[in-house]
Amino acid sequence: MTEKKLETVAANGLINRRHILGLGLAGVGAAASNSLLGAEAALNFEIPGWSRQPGPGASAYGTRSPHAAYMQRLAGAPNPLYPGGGSSRSPLQHLQGTITPNSLHFERHHAGVPAIDPAQHKLVINGLVRQALAFNYEDLLKYPMVSKIHFVECAGNSGAVLRDNLVDGTVQSLHGLVSCAEWTGIPLSILLDEAGVEPEAAWISAVGADAASMGRSVPLNKAMDDVLLALFQNGEPVQPGQGYPMRLLVPGWEGNLNVKWLTQIKLTRGPGHFRDETSKYTDVLPDRSSLQFTYPMGTKSLITSPSGQMELDRQGLYQVTGIAWSGSGSIRRVEVSADGGQTWGDAMIESHQSDKALTRFRIPWQWSGGAAVLQSRATDSLGNVQPTRSAILAERGNISTYHNHCIQSWAVNSAGRVSNVYV
Amino acid sequence: MTEKKLETVAANGLINRRHILGLGLAGVGAAASNSLLGAEAALNFEIPGWSRQPGPGASAYGTRSPHAAYMQRLAGAPNPLYPGGGSSRSPLQHLQGTITPNSLHFERHHAGVPAIDPAQHKLVINGLVRQALAFNYEDLLKYPMVSKIHFVECAGNSGAVLRDNLVDGTVQSLHGLVSCAEWTGIPLSILLDEAGVEPEAAWISAVGADAASMGRSVPLNKAMDDVLLALFQNGEPVQPGQGYPMRLLVPGWEGNLNVKWLTQIKLTRGPGHFRDETSKYTDVLPDRSSLQFTYPMGTKSLITSPSGQMELDRQGLYQVTGIAWSGSGSIRRVEVSADGGQTWGDAMIESHQSDKALTRFRIPWQWSGGAAVLQSRATDSLGNVQPTRSAILAERGNISTYHNHCIQSWAVNSAGRVSNVYV
Repeated sequence: MTEKKLETVAANGLINRRHILGLGLAGVGAAASNSLLGAEAALNFEIPGWSRQPGPGASAYGTRSPHAAYMQRLAGAPNPLYPGGGSSRSPLQHLQGTITPNSLHFERHHAGVPAIDPAQHKLVINGLVRQALAFNYEDLLKYPMVSKIHFVECAGNSGAVLRDNLVDGTVQSLHGLVSCAEWTGIPLSILLDEAGVEPEAAWISAVGADAASMGRSVPLNKAMDDVLLALFQNGEPVQPGQGYPMRLLVPGWEGNLNVKWLTQIKLTRGPGHFRDETSKYTDVLPDRSSLQFTYPMGTKSLITSPSGQMELDRQGLYQVTGIAWSGSGSIRRVEVSADGGQTWGDAMIESHQSDKALTRFRIPWQWSGGAAVLQSRATDSLGNVQPTRSAILAERGNISTYHNHCIQSWAVNSAGRVSNVYV
Repeated sequence: MTEKKLETVAANGLINRRHILGLGLAGVGAAASNSLLGAEAALNFEIPGWSRQPGPGASAYGTRSPHAAYMQRLAGAPNPLYPGGGSSRSPLQHLQGTITPNSLHFERHHAGVPAIDPAQHKLVINGLVRQALAFNYEDLLKYPMVSKIHFVECAGNSGAVLRDNLVDGTVQSLHGLVSCAEWTGIPLSILLDEAGVEPEAAWISAVGADAASMGRSVPLNKAMDDVLLALFQNGEPVQPGQGYPMRLLVPGWEGNLNVKWLTQIKLTRGPGHFRDETSKYTDVLPDRSSLQFTYPMGTKSLITSPSGQMELDRQGLYQVTGIAWSGSGSIRRVEVSADGGQTWGDAMIESHQSDKALTRFRIPWQWSGGAAVLQSRATDSLGNVQPTRSAILAERGNISTYHNHCIQSWAVNSAGRVSNVYV
């Protein structure tokens, strides 16, 4: 076994991303729990019980291993003053790749999950149209559909790291309101064209069938561009927590616009000024005025491992990995720093790089036991670069909560403990 | 409402794929059950109960709607002479897009599903290597991983339509042994490099921890190219039915090679001639000799709707949709015929077009109530064109079962009933 020389690309242990062959040996090898065995001895362990007798056969609907049950969404405690309201966060520290399994896609509800019978559900298109229309679920299944891989991110995701008080959270608790799926649905433009959009219409109001009647406004030009009436998520009908039987899918724009349990689209001259676009989801500025209708989610990335509350149990080589996305395009570059942003090395993109979709990055990192601050910085196809926390605060002050896409800093102390820090 | 003129691109009602706007109106409109309502009347239906009171809040792990429970794999009856053996087939007629949810991914087991505790599972690499190695699950999680969207197709998929006796099956029962997922795993080359491949090694033998000790041989150049040790499927650990805690993922090659519950990789000079590459998974030729080691799956497509046993309940416009894939590259073109292959129109590709991944196509079709035979024909990035059933039979005779990628014909009779036919 020859130990290859590691080419450093940035300070504090970041290794050239292309050096993937042989690094496992140097980093994980004998120091960790790999057993290095002679060829004869290699199979000399007890044959486990599960190899000795046949298991159960094929089934109609699969389930995960009980050993994988640690992958759970993190749901807030129920609030009796806000029945059904709240959220659950995706376990980003455990998920791999870019597709979120449907059962682990984050949720945000304003009055819980309605139990909708699709045969009794209607979608109405009215307002400034030549002819109001009502659609049944079965009819909608006959329309042309397209399939697109897109992230959905709650506008409130990562808001906690804008606050002064530093929370020792996990990547899930701080940033878990983002997920990604292959969405299949009808281009909304087809349905709007069928109703016949009147020339004076400039917005749509989309309203859900939940008890909150959650409603949001979307400019007509976006609605006619790439918005979908999504009926399927990763191949199967969207789950109730995601809007069954149908939701709006507004690629790249804040999650709250992706109205679930969609039951009405009204064409209007101006925005609807719904509750969730006045009291919430606006960006309060230092002068106490608010930015309203800030729709596209920013260019963003997160290191998901190592991340908050993890413990590094040995010195040596680690694979720094994470996700990056942009509401305006695809991810073109992710850089990683191990010294709090002083020097940067280019990470490898290790997944598809679709428009407005999560993208997976990775870079090897040699931890020598000292203190480190890990950061990632994404650049999208329009050249937008993920800003620092300081830059966001300088622009918006410290009242704002929504649309935070700042660089996340994870400190590693000399004991190997990883924690959320501000630098 | 103006009815647009439909531009025919092939006989028997195939419409130019780009005519998607406004077709819903012409085809589905008043003739179907859409209600055309005045603007005032459009919301004049009873507010359903689920909109009147809050539902349950967010949860740790989501489940699908009970109304979506019709999506089931089709599992064969247990055979007491073959305990745990058999398969389950993906519901292709219901799935949309290209990603198969993990719980609906097809299965093929040779001795059922072992209940593996990952903490007790080992992967051994031995044979013609400088140093035999054994890996624990926890150690493997530290290695570099990549994420790729790939189909897996059983070599026996679609074998029934090579037989003389015509089966009135569904697309699920005839062709459901194909699925697609985003797989995340360690490039096998990294682990082989760590063990140190001896110069005389030319093959690997991969063996599973199931009670069948299911084993297969893979040429070393493929193993060093794009083969993964897959640990995650659509973001979460592979399900037990897919090989938890780890499986081989051999992009584009026959499903049986993607050894589940992988526990040993042995480097060898030649193939292992395992049971499943001698008595099975070989292509018997007319002279009774057999093609062995025919690995890449062919260029193939299937219309999933309309498909076998469906009933067209009205004349008018339908969206013909389906999936296409190739074991040698990406899909570049799908053509559709409504007259049994005499004339062809180009379908629209409505999804990502990744290498060795399912791709979704669609083309509008106007059914005028007469008899029709629907077919699809895929072309991949290497120029490979999906062959007819006659061409496959002429080449291989009628003994062969495996690796059938012929064009599937669905007949529509004047009553609208769709059935499997040979043309």
